[in-house]
Amino acid sequence: MHLAEYLFRRIHELGIRSIFGVPGDYNLASLDYIAPCGLNWVGNVNELNGGYAADGYARIKGIGALMTTLGVGELSAINALAGSCAELVPVIHIVGYPSTAIQEKRLPMHHTLGDGEFGQFAKMSAEISSAVVVLKEQSDATRLIDETILECCRSSKPVYICFPVNLVKAEVDPSPLGCPLSLEQPSPNPMAVEDYAVDLILGRIRAAQNPVVILDGLAGKSHSLNTTRLFVQSSGIPCFITPMAKGIIDETLINFRGLYSGKPSEPTVYEQIQSSDLILEIGPRPTDFTTAGFQTDMPHIETIKFERHRIQMKFQGILGVGMNGVLERLSNVLDQGQSRSVSTASTTSTPPRNLSGTPDIHGTASPLSSPPKENANGEEFMDFEGNVVDKSQPLSQDWIWPRMASWLQEDDIVSADIGTAAFGSVWTRYPRGAVPLVQFLWSSIGYAVGAAVGAALAAREDEKESQGTQRRRTILLTGDGSLQMTAQEVSTMVRRNLGVIMFVVCNEGYTIERLINGMDEEYNDIQPWDYKLLPAVFQAAPNTARTYAVRTRAELNMLLDDPSFGPASHYDENNPPPLRIVELYMDKYDAPECLHELVGESAKSR
Amino acid sequence: MHLAEYLFRRIHELGIRSIFGVPGDYNLASLDYIAPCGLNWVGNVNELNGGYAADGYARIKGIGALMTTLGVGELSAINALAGSCAELVPVIHIVGYPSTAIQEKRLPMHHTLGDGEFGQFAKMSAEISSAVVVLKEQSDATRLIDETILECCRSSKPVYICFPVNLVKAEVDPSPLGCPLSLEQPSPNPMAVEDYAVDLILGRIRAAQNPVVILDGLAGKSHSLNTTRLFVQSSGIPCFITPMAKGIIDETLINFRGLYSGKPSEPTVYEQIQSSDLILEIGPRPTDFTTAGFQTDMPHIETIKFERHRIQMKFQGILGVGMNGVLERLSNVLDQGQSRSVSTASTTSTPPRNLSGTPDIHGTASPLSSPPKENANGEEFMDFEGNVVDKSQPLSQDWIWPRMASWLQEDDIVSADIGTAAFGSVWTRYPRGAVPLVQFLWSSIGYAVGAAVGAALAAREDEKESQGTQRRRTILLTGDGSLQMTAQEVSTMVRRNLGVIMFVVCNEGYTIERLINGMDEEYNDIQPWDYKLLPAVFQAAPNTARTYAVRTRAELNMLLDDPSFGPASHYDENNPPPLRIVELYMDKYDAPECLHELVGESAKSR
Repeated sequence: MHLAEYLFRRIHELGIRSIFGVPGDYNLASLDYIAPCGLNWVGNVNELNGGYAADGYARIKGIGALMTTLGVGELSAINALAGSCAELVPVIHIVGYPSTAIQEKRLPMHHTLGDGEFGQFAKMSAEISSAVVVLKEQSDATRLIDETILECCRSSKPVYICFPVNLVKAEVDPSPLGCPLSLEQPSPNPMAVEDYAVDLILGRIRAAQNPVVILDGLAGKSHSLNTTRLFVQSSGIPCFITPMAKGIIDETLINFRGLYSGKPSEPTVYEQIQSSDLILEIGPRPTDFTTAGFQTDMPHIETIKFERHRIQMKFQGILGVGMNGVLERLSNVLDQGQSRSVSTASTTSTPPRNLSGTPDIHGTASPLSSPPKENANGEEFMDFEGNVVDKSQPLSQDWIWPRMASWLQEDDIVSADIGTAAFGSVWTRYPRGAVPLVQFLWSSIGYAVGAAVGAALAAREDEKESQGTQRRRTILLTGDGSLQMTAQEVSTMVRRNLGVIMFVVCNEGYTIERLINGMDEEYNDIQPWDYKLLPAVFQAAPNTARTYAVRTRAELNMLLDDPSFGPASHYDENNPPPLRIVELYMDKYDAPECLHELVGESAKSR
Repeated sequence: MHLAEYLFRRIHELGIRSIFGVPGDYNLASLDYIAPCGLNWVGNVNELNGGYAADGYARIKGIGALMTTLGVGELSAINALAGSCAELVPVIHIVGYPSTAIQEKRLPMHHTLGDGEFGQFAKMSAEISSAVVVLKEQSDATRLIDETILECCRSSKPVYICFPVNLVKAEVDPSPLGCPLSLEQPSPNPMAVEDYAVDLILGRIRAAQNPVVILDGLAGKSHSLNTTRLFVQSSGIPCFITPMAKGIIDETLINFRGLYSGKPSEPTVYEQIQSSDLILEIGPRPTDFTTAGFQTDMPHIETIKFERHRIQMKFQGILGVGMNGVLERLSNVLDQGQSRSVSTASTTSTPPRNLSGTPDIHGTASPLSSPPKENANGEEFMDFEGNVVDKSQPLSQDWIWPRMASWLQEDDIVSADIGTAAFGSVWTRYPRGAVPLVQFLWSSIGYAVGAAVGAALAAREDEKESQGTQRRRTILLTGDGSLQMTAQEVSTMVRRNLGVIMFVVCNEGYTIERLINGMDEEYNDIQPWDYKLLPAVFQAAPNTARTYAVRTRAELNMLLDDPSFGPASHYDENNPPPLRIVELYMDKYDAPECLHELVGESAKSR
């Protein structure tokens, strides 16, 4: 077996079906092995977008892969991979290198600095990868590939594989493929310590009058996701999420209480946290954008932090036990009639799909569930050509995101860029199974376009493998400044018939930056584009793209209420769902209230 | 004076008038100082494009500057900066960082990996920079800035300045600004060694029957450009250039003989080199793309290599003297009646501008000077809407580039992407003063769009400073696969009214890759776009953009012969030159002959 085949068979074994990237002369030879190994070469428009797509794909499928060429290709993608590193998304990055003979001769090849060195770029990637491997010999190549892929899974971070062209066809022993890669099970917690921890924590929970659970970003990683969900459902303890934890649990659970991010939270949420006497924080991953500048800690409230390999208790110090074993036992105990009220619906592993039947336990006036104040009924009829000026109210940031949320469906994938789109949409309530793709830590604008490409491909693969029973929409929420960064990847949506539903906030530039500095400065402006022309530029086939310009609430209501606009339709190769691009014209100074507050609070801490 | 003002005043002193980049929250505060310091903030669509633009600008103005934000911004640009490092283009990269207090507290800020580290990204940039400075204290900041800028000039490579937000307004002593930065003069060669070298080399030149000069990439760097030009003109020795040396000397000089790149050269060129008995090689910078896979060395011919700090002689070994002093003295001696025939025209420092009057000394059949074989006269009339199928011959790679060359004007800037566009166009003869922007070493596709933005701005500034006497056109030659990588930067051409003349080879993908591997593979295909719609997407004002689709030789002849198509017009803010986009439809398997040969020769060496 050739080494390239070995590599791609391993990648296939992980569940990966699509490889992202751009061809380059040092990786062309390996590309010939992709289709024969049952994989699909996506062919992104550039490498940065390919890296974002691999990240988006990995967030849906568990792991992703990207292929680039030495120097020019890999460095174009490196911002995306750094994002995967920060956000803990496992991506296998394969980089095509010149032959080992050329490297040994130190020839000043193209795509190098001309100094005979071939090691700098791997060093650069090492700063943002959990493993870097430079394949040199065929004798140890399969072992190194296996170890590197395992490290990718273990760390949930990118890894980097340098693959010289002369090793593509190197003959290797295929027998390791007979034994699927498997992560060694983490050693169980020492029983005595775990017993002690469970007793201690159980005592605290039972003693507490108003305990709360707060989930943060790391609770959603593969090593802890199931236990986290089990604990939230079994314990029935009121549960909050940080913005980074969006998508981890079903927001229709009766004990789900909303989104917590310090002062910018809903007042009722803030009060519930403030008045609690025990915080169980699962998977902490604080960053300034989700904590109003690190102002979410409640020093006066007892807090237990559950981490992968340890548990931190405010008064007892650090316990050397991993959270999984402890949470699982706590779940069992709390679920045996000793826990607080838990609805039967919420404890089933496959809760009912009827979202509308879920009782609203938030009381009044929570934007997480409140319907938009306006209604299309009775308002002037509008077409979507943007030629007629509607007399109804203009779109505003605080109106639009709850309105969008009421249109979301179960299992939607919502790729939201880190401007008003992310801060607006994540603060709304999601239907069950809906997940956001957002970078609250890395915060690279332009990410959401690429991520939507990857996620939409992943969703289509899942649909195919479920024989059509799983249908998910991929929704892209972005801003004009963000979209422009990576706009050419919309071409891939057209080329691969991805049927993404794009909403573009058209508000004349970098509004999130305006709030920070230079409200009226030209450097926060951008060139206005006509996004509705993009499908024509990318030569979308007839009836495969629709575009809309929306300026008023009535117009948006009419669009979202139109059942033909956005159904989660079955993917049919011969009649694929259309790309939809909706321009949302909004005021350039308008921002979601939470973002105003966040910037204000965050500025205080600097 | 605030530190940000100090920094930008230094940058202004270097002749820089435009700063490229994208705003980000860690650099916003410094952006407020740009306009007051007499600088222009360009505002690119993304950072990679901004980096390419800074490189293109630096190639025209001598040095460029780029401003990005921590992590996401700088890493998006890092491929462009690595290109500047490889190609020896000086670019000052200023990166906005969080305050030093936040860094000291190791807070997990957005745009970091969340691990409290702030040093990784500077380490990554260090691999592709000649200096990296992390500003921390106001006490030494101005000194560090001055040293770093000087290092940028000295090395002709990028430098990296980490600029924390709290130092933007730090009060510093402005007095060093009274003393302009100046590079220390290189110590002159030891006189005895220089005497020895001049005598030795002069003896070789005089003893040779057919000496030739070959200029390579480093001959064009600021430290050697003037001496190189002087030597070529004064000595009158037949002079060849490598593809990397394109633009260094006036190709209308009587002793200019053509472009040498090993076997893929013109047969007459190849023969002249082969039959020479002494090669004087100035500024060697070999790479596989310009040497047919390192096959240009002539081991049987005596060769003297002139480098910045030493001279290598095949039989005498290495002389420890810099080329400048030696070449200058050789020029003086050879110019005093002792040299070979030199036309009076070619020895003047400002040769006549009349290109058509220059005698062709190439003999017959050199594609460097031969006119295209077809002619529009007598062929069917065509409009440029592409609706009518012309009966004349289709465009072909070997026809089009000489045809384009005959349309070039003096002082044109030709930004050519490293596919068929670069290999085709650089192999043609240029008018005097015309310069290409091409990355033969780094070879990053997509570069040419960004570089054209930077170069066009530089040319406009030069026109303004010359009070309109210097007018240069900026011409972009690119391919469809390359353009798509960075297409959004055409928006900046529209926004800043740059009047670039773009030619896009539309040949359905990565033809240069097809020649290497996968001639018919889908991975070398791309989505077809309608590039003519780009001005409408970018909302170009009426009459500020024109588009053309060209499919035949007759159509191209008609377009290029139309005097209203591409004059080097004076820049008038109220009536700026239009953006022109010309689609050149060509066969997807067609490539310039030199590229076929180069790939073939290069493959042999691997």
